[in-house]
Amino acid sequence: MANNKNRLIYLPLGGAGEIGMNMYLYGYGPKGNERFILVDVGVTFPDMESTPGVDLIMADPSYIVERADRLEGIFITHAHEDHIGAIGLLYPQLQAPIYCRAFTSAIARNKMERAGQDTDAVNEVAIWPAMVEAGPFKVGFAPISHSIPEASALVIDTPAGRIFHSGDFKIDPDPQVGEAFDPDLMKAIAQGGIRAFVCDSTNVFNHHPGRSEASLPSAITEMMTHASGMVVATTFASNVARLKTLAQAAVDAGREVVMVGRAMNVMTQTALSTGVLTDFPPVISIEDAKGKPREKLMVLATGSQGERRAASAQLAVGKYQGMELKAGDTFLFSSKTIPGNEIGVARIHNLLAEKGVVVVAEDDRYHVSGHANRPDLDRLQTLLNPDLVIPMHGEYRHLREHAELAEANGRKAAIAPNGVMLDITGEPRVVEHIDTGRTYLDGMVLIGAMDGVVRQRLQFALRGHVVVSVMIDEKNRLSDGVWAEAHGLPEPKQGSFDQMLEAAMNKDLEKAKRGVLGDDEAVERLIVQACNRVSKKAIGKKPVCTVLISRMEG
Amino acid sequence: MANNKNRLIYLPLGGAGEIGMNMYLYGYGPKGNERFILVDVGVTFPDMESTPGVDLIMADPSYIVERADRLEGIFITHAHEDHIGAIGLLYPQLQAPIYCRAFTSAIARNKMERAGQDTDAVNEVAIWPAMVEAGPFKVGFAPISHSIPEASALVIDTPAGRIFHSGDFKIDPDPQVGEAFDPDLMKAIAQGGIRAFVCDSTNVFNHHPGRSEASLPSAITEMMTHASGMVVATTFASNVARLKTLAQAAVDAGREVVMVGRAMNVMTQTALSTGVLTDFPPVISIEDAKGKPREKLMVLATGSQGERRAASAQLAVGKYQGMELKAGDTFLFSSKTIPGNEIGVARIHNLLAEKGVVVVAEDDRYHVSGHANRPDLDRLQTLLNPDLVIPMHGEYRHLREHAELAEANGRKAAIAPNGVMLDITGEPRVVEHIDTGRTYLDGMVLIGAMDGVVRQRLQFALRGHVVVSVMIDEKNRLSDGVWAEAHGLPEPKQGSFDQMLEAAMNKDLEKAKRGVLGDDEAVERLIVQACNRVSKKAIGKKPVCTVLISRMEG
Repeated sequence: MANNKNRLIYLPLGGAGEIGMNMYLYGYGPKGNERFILVDVGVTFPDMESTPGVDLIMADPSYIVERADRLEGIFITHAHEDHIGAIGLLYPQLQAPIYCRAFTSAIARNKMERAGQDTDAVNEVAIWPAMVEAGPFKVGFAPISHSIPEASALVIDTPAGRIFHSGDFKIDPDPQVGEAFDPDLMKAIAQGGIRAFVCDSTNVFNHHPGRSEASLPSAITEMMTHASGMVVATTFASNVARLKTLAQAAVDAGREVVMVGRAMNVMTQTALSTGVLTDFPPVISIEDAKGKPREKLMVLATGSQGERRAASAQLAVGKYQGMELKAGDTFLFSSKTIPGNEIGVARIHNLLAEKGVVVVAEDDRYHVSGHANRPDLDRLQTLLNPDLVIPMHGEYRHLREHAELAEANGRKAAIAPNGVMLDITGEPRVVEHIDTGRTYLDGMVLIGAMDGVVRQRLQFALRGHVVVSVMIDEKNRLSDGVWAEAHGLPEPKQGSFDQMLEAAMNKDLEKAKRGVLGDDEAVERLIVQACNRVSKKAIGKKPVCTVLISRMEG
Repeated sequence: MANNKNRLIYLPLGGAGEIGMNMYLYGYGPKGNERFILVDVGVTFPDMESTPGVDLIMADPSYIVERADRLEGIFITHAHEDHIGAIGLLYPQLQAPIYCRAFTSAIARNKMERAGQDTDAVNEVAIWPAMVEAGPFKVGFAPISHSIPEASALVIDTPAGRIFHSGDFKIDPDPQVGEAFDPDLMKAIAQGGIRAFVCDSTNVFNHHPGRSEASLPSAITEMMTHASGMVVATTFASNVARLKTLAQAAVDAGREVVMVGRAMNVMTQTALSTGVLTDFPPVISIEDAKGKPREKLMVLATGSQGERRAASAQLAVGKYQGMELKAGDTFLFSSKTIPGNEIGVARIHNLLAEKGVVVVAEDDRYHVSGHANRPDLDRLQTLLNPDLVIPMHGEYRHLREHAELAEANGRKAAIAPNGVMLDITGEPRVVEHIDTGRTYLDGMVLIGAMDGVVRQRLQFALRGHVVVSVMIDEKNRLSDGVWAEAHGLPEPKQGSFDQMLEAAMNKDLEKAKRGVLGDDEAVERLIVQACNRVSKKAIGKKPVCTVLISRMEG
């Protein structure tokens, strides 16, 4: 029967239609009985705008959790949080072997351990042409340059053909640390044909060819040579190549290197212990640095995105482990501000300006992106010559622009945002729409974005909270008056808001018909109405109103 | 006595150390008995990050409110919200005559009327060399180009010399609507010498010379000529010149113009009625537009900053008054995204991309800034040749960079962020630090940023709210058990969170010594402790806990 025909499906659960929380599913087999592999299990970060109090955000894994018995493996392309961050949290529901390269494995095991999961689930793999068998799939890790060590594209062989899943990448012939982009490797992979090229879309709007990490050292060295005081440089902790570039530039500029912030130390140690990094300039401790002239120091600090707890923010506010910035010092953002973080980064910039520190930010001479620009996307398309291009890792506008780019080159393209299942066995077609969404880690609990928990908190933030306690005696009479407390709400000019609320509620309850006080819902309704009426008139707001009714037993 | 010597002081209350809510005070007279003028009474806009539920933010006017009897006048440089937005709200406390030019007056009267204030307080003034006498000050309005009609610099004559307060400005020899930047006027104003040049710092980090509004029409016309479907263009509603540029470009491209969104209609009508705008291409109604081919239409829409209620957002989501965008239409952001609004603008961009609409954004060909860039700041300094430069209208980093620019040119400069009072009678010196801050319009009530109201709401948003009701009888015994309700908090895996809270609280209350239940504070402390203990263990959070204690009377 036709229904038993094997099909190859692609279903993004996260990362397609947004930048962050990547999670892509591939399936092969008869409809309803496919075997699956999952690529990346990332997180994205909460904000006050939509997710106050939330600790981490990840894709809703329900679709694959419900089919976890058919999940053959989890493949992690690289160790950035938006690709690996949720592995420890979601592993209990997925329970499939995890595959990644050495550096990524070290990070993955750390996450598994912190989540109380079995680190043995993490399997270290060799690079392509070595392949991992996972049900109907064979998966190879092809080294590709990015802004973290050992980033890999996945070569996914299926009975319906080969898929090239780019992961995050850039075209860098000289990335300073780790493997260069290798066009010959790409051609070799593409030799038997590529069914689908699933590709990073982050920088599709950038029309300039990408720049190599190798373009930075001389400019940074020159800058550090001419800077008058101490230099502090910040970048992503996981950008080990950049850390090395910055440290080497400091040494070449006659400065000693100090490294502050836990994440940078973890990343360099991991890179050294996994053999990714073979040489790193000597680093001295903060204590040792204290005796040295400031113009002979360069401090590597975490917090390039303005994170309040990171070393950069602490140095901007005051001291970090006794170290303090002074007028004439220089602060280098060797980074790009991620959209949404502008205000936090500007805050640091302003604090530093108040101290008289020279701030160098958003300067192309001192930073290159980790993602392929438009001409680079073009180039990899040409090298792979795929039957089909599927843009991923981008907001909808990026996916669309990327698809149009492919089409302009005479290629077939398909846009599949989160939840859109594509059958790519033959001509790509949408075969199903899956409910996808977000899962929040809220304290210690995983909740759904639509559970209403965070929505309730947002309502409190916007509207304040009036809490009312009512005691009703055994004869359904009001015992004493109501007690109302307004929280997070202004006092009106006319006097005590609580008293105004209580007066109106008491009056309404006293006027109420006999039966009303016997009915909790009716009492609550009456109180909420009084609350809305008084609040609108007195303060021009409509608070959330919670009513606690205590009934005395006879 | 020396203490009776007259002094000239400058005190920014808002706008120096931030971009937004401009409010600058000038004083002249003996210390403690100065007469004052206030320049601009602006607002800034709330966000979820720090001010959820707040309607508007303005500078704390306390310093001048306490001295309102010595306030001689309020001068408004131009009608942007960050300069005029709070006039109606703060007028009741200020009660001084308001002076501005015709277009600004129309907007000011509208704000006064909506706040229930006397519109006669607004006085329409002629331009410099006409001067308004205000105590020891004489103030003239010097036309200067900006992105709104009739923007003015203020020429403030004092017994201690002339101050040039730039307001917001750019150097535009051909602004399309309104007065061009006039170097001869500047030279004439500077003829007798300029004591202090208080100057816009917004674009000090931009090293390119500013571009004229006149550079846009041909590029926009060409773009609208080649666009295939309907074109929608958005920009700031108050940028009347841009509205005209866009409308004229549409006509030149063979399109008819529709204008949607209240603010744009108000602004163009105000510009026409005050004579600022003498010709504007014909505009047709949405109804009339419905019969026309879409490639013959250009729609001007409000909402260039991604505002959710504006026409652009509504068109991106679905329909606006029956009008709908289709694949192949073009959407032009003739604007720059203000930092902090990136996510909102990207949201619209993505929604439009999903519809297949071509989005043109952040493209210099179709937008020029309203603020002077670094070379333009240089140029105006040279024209005015002031004794002293005081940067305003910028975050601290802008003020600092601007001061350094002036100093690099061999000029004296002084940085005074909000609350720093400068005596500029002779050598500039800081004479006082005033407590400044922010005032929130929260619903209908003005509250201080430090009043704790909004902080409380933020705590609810971050931590959730546990509400507990306790009934204690006349003999200080617990009557029934406590009632606990968790709001905005997740359910732990183990079961009902409310029940877990109640169980722990009841247990602790039952164990408590006899005296405890007679003491409200002790009861509350005990319950909050139980709440923290249970919450930490069950959900990993520490909620806000409110305890309502009802005591039964004997």
